[in-house]
Amino acid sequence: MKACGIVVEYNPFHNGHLYHAQKAREQTGADVVIAVMSGNFLQRGEPAILDKWQRTQAAIHNGIDLVVELPVEWAVQSADYFAKGAIRILQKLDCDYICFGTEDTESFDYESFGQFVHTHQSEITQAFQQLSNQAISYPQKMTKVFQQLYPAITLDYSSPNHILGLSYAKENATYEQPMKIVPIKRKVADYHDENLSGQNIASATAIRKALLEKRGINEVVPLQTAFFLENERLQTWDDYWPFLQYRLLSSTTTSLKTIYQMTEGIETRMQKAAKEVKSFSEFVALVKTKRYTWTRIQRLSCYVLLNIEEQEMIEQQNQEYLHILGFTKAGREYLKSKKKNTIYAKIGKKEAEVAKLLVRSDQIYQLGGSIPEQVFGRKPCTE
Amino acid sequence: MKACGIVVEYNPFHNGHLYHAQKAREQTGADVVIAVMSGNFLQRGEPAILDKWQRTQAAIHNGIDLVVELPVEWAVQSADYFAKGAIRILQKLDCDYICFGTEDTESFDYESFGQFVHTHQSEITQAFQQLSNQAISYPQKMTKVFQQLYPAITLDYSSPNHILGLSYAKENATYEQPMKIVPIKRKVADYHDENLSGQNIASATAIRKALLEKRGINEVVPLQTAFFLENERLQTWDDYWPFLQYRLLSSTTTSLKTIYQMTEGIETRMQKAAKEVKSFSEFVALVKTKRYTWTRIQRLSCYVLLNIEEQEMIEQQNQEYLHILGFTKAGREYLKSKKKNTIYAKIGKKEAEVAKLLVRSDQIYQLGGSIPEQVFGRKPCTE
Repeated sequence: MKACGIVVEYNPFHNGHLYHAQKAREQTGADVVIAVMSGNFLQRGEPAILDKWQRTQAAIHNGIDLVVELPVEWAVQSADYFAKGAIRILQKLDCDYICFGTEDTESFDYESFGQFVHTHQSEITQAFQQLSNQAISYPQKMTKVFQQLYPAITLDYSSPNHILGLSYAKENATYEQPMKIVPIKRKVADYHDENLSGQNIASATAIRKALLEKRGINEVVPLQTAFFLENERLQTWDDYWPFLQYRLLSSTTTSLKTIYQMTEGIETRMQKAAKEVKSFSEFVALVKTKRYTWTRIQRLSCYVLLNIEEQEMIEQQNQEYLHILGFTKAGREYLKSKKKNTIYAKIGKKEAEVAKLLVRSDQIYQLGGSIPEQVFGRKPCTE
Repeated sequence: MKACGIVVEYNPFHNGHLYHAQKAREQTGADVVIAVMSGNFLQRGEPAILDKWQRTQAAIHNGIDLVVELPVEWAVQSADYFAKGAIRILQKLDCDYICFGTEDTESFDYESFGQFVHTHQSEITQAFQQLSNQAISYPQKMTKVFQQLYPAITLDYSSPNHILGLSYAKENATYEQPMKIVPIKRKVADYHDENLSGQNIASATAIRKALLEKRGINEVVPLQTAFFLENERLQTWDDYWPFLQYRLLSSTTTSLKTIYQMTEGIETRMQKAAKEVKSFSEFVALVKTKRYTWTRIQRLSCYVLLNIEEQEMIEQQNQEYLHILGFTKAGREYLKSKKKNTIYAKIGKKEAEVAKLLVRSDQIYQLGGSIPEQVFGRKPCTE
């Protein structure tokens, strides 16, 4: 059986995702499509609007054979770490291909790029360090470095999806048997596009915006997603802001310093802001600086909310379990042949001692509303 | 100027308190009556239904000349510690008398009792230790010890007010110049009495119960209290339960162990219960054991909510500032002559670094509703 892996968040699952799953299967001829999906907290440091089980259910009914959780220690991270965690899971599952959406499938050779980075790591680091005094952003620096070292490629660091693609390619190249990379041309909606396109595909960002404005979204999402979006309360940072504020006001500055990525005195900035504001968006706006972008503050806020310390983050990243969120018959069949891995199909007391941050983040996610049990006793979704 | 001290919580200030203040002045002939009052968290481990400024305002308009805060590190404590903190403040303010309500003013000599305990501390400790294997409660043990060592007195450990009186007497006797103890016979309402008496005096417990049941209380409280009770939302543990639950679920067991008085594995009991229940009362009911009474669990819950560690508690108890909540003209005049003390009439950045737990507990109290700023920039209430 051939398997194709994809890396997703499905916030929420929409027609563009359906298209992506179909194309992945079509272009690779794979028997199963495996999605590594962020759990209840997402890459940009936000709670998911629908819980992971609801998003999995939509996926399983719309072309995905197996959904494996990307736990919070990898999901709420910048592109390179996010990719590291996701590729590791796809590698454990012996995927033959990795597919991801991109704007341009013709002119960019991801595999050569990945190989180049893998074999020139020290030169890249050195060139990057030489730019350390320049007041330009990380993407701009990276673009300069590659212009200098690898002029044959043109990097476009303005598209988040492309950045993730580059990270997948780099990480994939570090394995002995890299997966074959199959980029898929994205259809219609740009990542940043906030307008519903009227063409049955809209970006997740556009859909979340439409939901906030109470506009209809049924044309751009499959039935399962439409059902959940209509019947469930959608989680946002506003639901967790009281807890974040409480945590900041009840902690000593010393203890906040032990939180993952809490550096350069940002903890006192956060504590001060927590006293002064009434909402999460006001909070981020007040804490934000040139160095600390909106997304970075959101991720840091997740680490505070979830109380993730540096040491814990490292420990959890060393755990190698796979948590199964859902499968079709084919997906289950495929999984059976991968028993060399530590596979959690259900989380009980024993598993909870290993998957500590997954359990903690789910329990905190649950506090944000009348959300059903997220961890204990939950079984993988099926068709 | 002669001063008489009393120790209060005013949850809320009612006609019985007014009577107590009048009697204290009358029976001692003091020029000023000084109340040491718990802040926003109380002796039995609960948030106050009205904030400390509202309770102070009622007091200042009803016979109290000076209100000094008993900070959380002394207020949320068992009787002996509560008394230690309160007596220390009254001693700093050179009070000549201490008055407290009691059921029986005739047959019990508090001063001799205090002196006896002070001079026989080691015998008492020894006798108490000899009873350590007996499965009887602390009050029962104490009763036995005194029957043995000091048969002339009859201890009644069934009344919380009497227990506090004994603690004041013991603590007062440890000072070089003890205050004169003037017990005042309580009028009508028993501490545990939950019925409004129809005689213009009712206990705070009865009043809180009446409020919950939406019965009128205007006959048993002065105007200021009635105004606040009608117009403000009353704080209960229910308002802080989400934060307590979040704290328990987001903390590691190891870090919970550092909380003040967290012993004997009660932290895992609390964490387990936090997962299973939906309200604070369910929580306490589930955690409660023979050793851990309702009040003890409530206090421990306060320490968790306020994130008070053992070491911090000790540090804060070593601070000797006086925080003034309100005064009449006479009270202010009296205070002027006590400048040998560190007196905070307003809390700014500098004071906040000393009164850390006071500030933290007020900020957390504020999160329980739309409660006005409790700390920064607040000035003492005046007539």
